[in-house]
Amino acid sequence: MFKSVGLVARYDNNHALKLAEELCEYLRSQKVEVYAEETLDGRADLRAEFIPLRLMKPDFLITIGGDGTILRTCIEVPKPEPPILAVNKGVRGFLTEVEPKDACAAAERCLKGDFRIERCCKLAISTEGETIPDGLNDVVVSAGEPSKLLYTQIIKDKEPILRCQSDGLIVATQTGSTGYSLSAGGPVLDVGVDAFVLTPICSLTVFRSLVFPAETKVTIKAIRPKDTLVLVDGRYRLRLKSENAIITITRSKNFTSFIRFKDDFYGRLRNRLLFKGMG
Amino acid sequence: MFKSVGLVARYDNNHALKLAEELCEYLRSQKVEVYAEETLDGRADLRAEFIPLRLMKPDFLITIGGDGTILRTCIEVPKPEPPILAVNKGVRGFLTEVEPKDACAAAERCLKGDFRIERCCKLAISTEGETIPDGLNDVVVSAGEPSKLLYTQIIKDKEPILRCQSDGLIVATQTGSTGYSLSAGGPVLDVGVDAFVLTPICSLTVFRSLVFPAETKVTIKAIRPKDTLVLVDGRYRLRLKSENAIITITRSKNFTSFIRFKDDFYGRLRNRLLFKGMG
Amino acid sequence: MFKSVGLVARYDNNHALKLAEELCEYLRSQKVEVYAEETLDGRADLRAEFIPLRLMKPDFLITIGGDGTILRTCIEVPKPEPPILAVNKGVRGFLTEVEPKDACAAAERCLKGDFRIERCCKLAISTEGETIPDGLNDVVVSAGEPSKLLYTQIIKDKEPILRCQSDGLIVATQTGSTGYSLSAGGPVLDVGVDAFVLTPICSLTVFRSLVFPAETKVTIKAIRPKDTLVLVDGRYRLRLKSENAIITITRSKNFTSFIRFKDDFYGRLRNRLLFKGMG
Amino acid sequence: MFKSVGLVARYDNNHALKLAEELCEYLRSQKVEVYAEETLDGRADLRAEFIPLRLMKPDFLITIGGDGTILRTCIEVPKPEPPILAVNKGVRGFLTEVEPKDACAAAERCLKGDFRIERCCKLAISTEGETIPDGLNDVVVSAGEPSKLLYTQIIKDKEPILRCQSDGLIVATQTGSTGYSLSAGGPVLDVGVDAFVLTPICSLTVFRSLVFPAETKVTIKAIRPKDTLVLVDGRYRLRLKSENAIITITRSKNFTSFIRFKDDFYGRLRNRLLFKGMG
Repeated sequence: MFKSVGLVARYDNNHALKLAEELCEYLRSQKVEVYAEETLDGRADLRAEFIPLRLMKPDFLITIGGDGTILRTCIEVPKPEPPILAVNKGVRGFLTEVEPKDACAAAERCLKGDFRIERCCKLAISTEGETIPDGLNDVVVSAGEPSKLLYTQIIKDKEPILRCQSDGLIVATQTGSTGYSLSAGGPVLDVGVDAFVLTPICSLTVFRSLVFPAETKVTIKAIRPKDTLVLVDGRYRLRLKSENAIITITRSKNFTSFIRFKDDFYGRLRNRLLFKGMG
Repeated sequence: MFKSVGLVARYDNNHALKLAEELCEYLRSQKVEVYAEETLDGRADLRAEFIPLRLMKPDFLITIGGDGTILRTCIEVPKPEPPILAVNKGVRGFLTEVEPKDACAAAERCLKGDFRIERCCKLAISTEGETIPDGLNDVVVSAGEPSKLLYTQIIKDKEPILRCQSDGLIVATQTGSTGYSLSAGGPVLDVGVDAFVLTPICSLTVFRSLVFPAETKVTIKAIRPKDTLVLVDGRYRLRLKSENAIITITRSKNFTSFIRFKDDFYGRLRNRLLFKGMG
Repeated sequence: MFKSVGLVARYDNNHALKLAEELCEYLRSQKVEVYAEETLDGRADLRAEFIPLRLMKPDFLITIGGDGTILRTCIEVPKPEPPILAVNKGVRGFLTEVEPKDACAAAERCLKGDFRIERCCKLAISTEGETIPDGLNDVVVSAGEPSKLLYTQIIKDKEPILRCQSDGLIVATQTGSTGYSLSAGGPVLDVGVDAFVLTPICSLTVFRSLVFPAETKVTIKAIRPKDTLVLVDGRYRLRLKSENAIITITRSKNFTSFIRFKDDFYGRLRNRLLFKGMG
Repeated sequence: MFKSVGLVARYDNNHALKLAEELCEYLRSQKVEVYAEETLDGRADLRAEFIPLRLMKPDFLITIGGDGTILRTCIEVPKPEPPILAVNKGVRGFLTEVEPKDACAAAERCLKGDFRIERCCKLAISTEGETIPDGLNDVVVSAGEPSKLLYTQIIKDKEPILRCQSDGLIVATQTGSTGYSLSAGGPVLDVGVDAFVLTPICSLTVFRSLVFPAETKVTIKAIRPKDTLVLVDGRYRLRLKSENAIITITRSKNFTSFIRFKDDFYGRLRNRLLFKGMG
C-alpha cells in the first residue's frame, strides 16, 4: 500500500527530532522509502533523503509537531496532497491524531491500511493575479497594521450584501471553524456541513458570523486603507498595496486528508473549547 | 392560477382589519374565492367564508401582521402549506415581503403568477410520542422557569457529543438563524446552506453555536430538572414532566413557501441586525 | 471571640450531613453553642438546637454545600448577617472557601480569629411596596415565561437611558458578575470596583453590558407583557402582574461577609471560566 | 474668561477648513487671540498665528473633525490640557458635541462661560523607560503583526492573576469603553464608574472582560513573540523588541476636559451601538 513516506518535524524540539529518528528506523525496517524535509538535515540523524517540502511526493506524510507544523506542510506540499498522519508534539494539537508514544504503532496501522481518511475542504483564494496557496483553516483579510480599521464590502457571488468596518474578516472552513474564527466569536461547523463561515474581527459595525454554502464565491473588497494583508492559515502572508483590493474566496478543488483511527471531532472540540494556558 | 385565498390578519389592529377588507374586495372582484380566519368574524366586514386556520386549504395565503402572525399561521395551517404572501403590519416584519400600501398590487402580481417562491426548511420535532408542530424558525428546549439551569446532553445521530448547562438550547433553521438564535449569539445561515444551528442560551459551560448538516438527527436529553419546556417558533408550548426527557430534532419533510418579488435576504438581514427600539 | 455558630447543610447529601455532625461535635468540644437549621432535624444526628434560618443569630455561620446553599442562607438569615465559613460540598462552589477535609481545621482557625473577612456588596431591590430580600449575586427581571420577549425601559437615577427588548435584564454585584451575568456575556468586576453591572439576556436590541457606579439607582420599567418575574439570586421569585411594573435596584446597606483564609478571587475566577460539565 | 483659543481641523476636508476660517473670524471679532495648528498653514485662510500642537497653550481648544482629530489633539497638546469644544466633521463623532452649523453659537456660549466641563480620566502607560503619551480612550498591547497570537500574563498590582493567549489586550477608560473595547466585546462603563476595563482581542483562552478599580496598576507581561506593539488611542505606536516586555497601566494624573452643553452620554451611546456603515 504505502511504499514511501515524507517526514516533517519541528526542528526546534529535541523530542520531535528524536521521534523522527525512531520513526525513520521503523519505517525503513518495513521497507518503506523515507524522505525527510530538508530543514531536518544536520539536526536529526536520519537515514533518509532530504528534500524540500515543495518537492515532496510520497504516498503519505508524517508530521511531528502541532497544528502549526500541519498548516505549514499543507501550504507547501505539492497538490494533490498525500494523506497526513499527524503526531502531536506541539502546544496546540487540535488537528493531530496520535500522541508521540503511539507514533510507531500508528505508522504500523498506516502500512496495514488499518485507518480511515478524513477529507477536509480547503479554500481557494485569489487576488489580482497573485498565486496564493489554498487555506486548510482560514484566510484573514485585515489592514496591514494590528488594531487598525479596515473598510470592506462583502459580495456574495455578484451581489454586494454587507459593508463592514472591522479589524478584519476571517473566512474559515469547517476545520478552521474551531480555530481563529472561534476565538473571534464564530460558530463551530460540523465536519459534515458543506459550508464555510465568515467572521468579523472586532467589528465596529453591528455584524455577526455568516455561514455560506461551500460553492459560494465570496468576494471581499478592501476599500480602505491601501495597506491590506491577506493571511492564509496564519502562515502565508501577502501584502496588497492597492485601494479597493479584491480578494475572492471559494471552495478549492484540493483537499487535505488526515489519517484517522477514531472518529473524534467532538472530543477534540471539547479540548479546544476549554483551552487553558490561563496559569 | 390561484383560485382561492386564505386571509389571516392581526385582529388587534384596526389598520390590519381595514386592509383585510380592502384585499377581500379586490380579490373577490378578480373572481378569487376568499376564506377568512374565523377570529376575524365579527371584527372585520368581510364577504368571505370564515373557517379556522387548521381547516384552511386555499391556493395561497395572505397574512397581514408581523412575524408572529406568520409563525402562528404556519403552525396551524394543514400540510402541505400553501404559499404565503406576507404583508407587514407588525412590530417586527423580518419575514414579511410587502408594505400595506403595496398589498393590492402584490395580490395582483400573485394572481398573474408574477413572483418567485422562497422555499424554507422546517424542523421536525418529536418527543415521547407527542405530536409537535414543525418549526419554521426554531425550537427551544429550556427549564420550565425563566433563568433556571437546564442540564442537557447533546447527541448527534447516535453519538453523545457534548454536555451543556445553560438556560436552554435553541435549534434554528436558516430562516430562524436571524431570529432568537441571533439574539443568543448565533451565526446567520445563508438561505442556501443546507444546515441548522444549535445555540445555547446563557451557557454556564464553555460552549458555542454548532452548525449541523440538515439531515442530522439532533437529540437533546434534558437531564435535570424534571420540568422542561419545548417551545416551537415562540408560540407552541409543550411542558414535559419526566426526568431525562428526550427531544429529537431533524429536518422536516414539510416546507413553508413565501411569495417573493425580490431577492432581498441581506436587505432584511441588515434591518434585523440594526433592530432598534432603543428609544 | 465566636461563642455561637449556626450550621446550615444540604440535607440531600449524606456527606454533607455527616460533616455537619463532625463539625457539631468539634465545636461543642470547644464550648461553642451550636444552632442547626431546622431542616436538619431528623436528618442529621446533631446535639444542637434546631431553629429556622430566619431566626438564626449566631456569631458566625458554617454552610456545607455549594453556592446554592450560601445564596439561600443569605436570603433568609436576619440582618446584619453573621460572617459565613463556606465549606464546599456542591456542584458549583465558586463562593466557597474550604474543602470538606479541611472543615474542622478551618473551624479551629475561626475560633482563634485567624482569618480575614471578605465583605461583599448586596443589591437592595424594591417594587411597588413589596418587600424583597437583598441580592448577593444578582436580580433578574424577565417575562414570566422562558424565552419570551420583555420590553423594558432602563432609567438611571431619573434619566431614561435605553430601551431594550430581551428575555430579561440581569443586575449583578461584583460577586455575582462571575455568575449568571457572565453566562449572559457580561464582564467580571474585580471585587474592588465600586459598581454593579447590567447585562441583557438574549437582547433583540443591539445592547451591551453597562457598568454603573454602586450608588446609582437603576430603575427597570417592564412595559410588556404584564406577567413579569423578579428573581433574586436564582432563588427568591416574585411574580408581578401589572403593566409598566417598576423595579428599582441600588446598593444595599447590608453586606454578606465571608470568612477567608487566602485571597484567591482570581484563582476562583479561573476555575469559573473553565467550568466544565461538558462530558 | 477665555482669552485665547487653539484651532485644530482636519486639513483633508474643505468644509472643515472653511469652518475653521469662519470660526477664526468670529473669535477675532470677539477679541479672542487665535492660534491655529501649523498643518493648516497654506491650507486655510486664517488670520491667526500658526504653531505646532505640541506648543499650543490656549485657554481652550476647538477641534473640527471626528474622534480621530480629538484623539490626535489630546496626545500632542501640552499638559494640563485646555478644555476642548469638539465640532463634528468626521466619520465617527462619538466624542464630539456640536454639529458644524452650530459651531459659532457654541463658541459664543464658550466665551460667555455658559457650558459644563466633562472631565475624562486618562491612562498613564509606561514601559522600560519609554515616554508614552496618556491614553484618553485606550491602550492596546498586541503582537507586531495582525492576527498573530500574543502570550501574555496579566498582573494586578503585584499579583499575577491570569494568562491569556490572544491577538492582544485592550485597556480602556470609561470614555474608551464605547470604542474599540466595545467592538471587542467589552462592556460600557458609565462615566461615573471609577474604573477601567481590560478586554482581550480574539482570545484563544477562555477569557472575559475584567473591570478594575481605577487606582489599580495593571501590568501586562508580553511573553511571546518578541515583536510587540503598544498602541495608544489608535494613533501613537511604539514597537518593543524584547522578550517579556513589561507594560504598566494605571490612572493618569492628567485629564481631558470636554466642553458640553447637554448631558448626553446615553444619547451618544445609542448612536454608537447602532453604528451603521453597512451599506
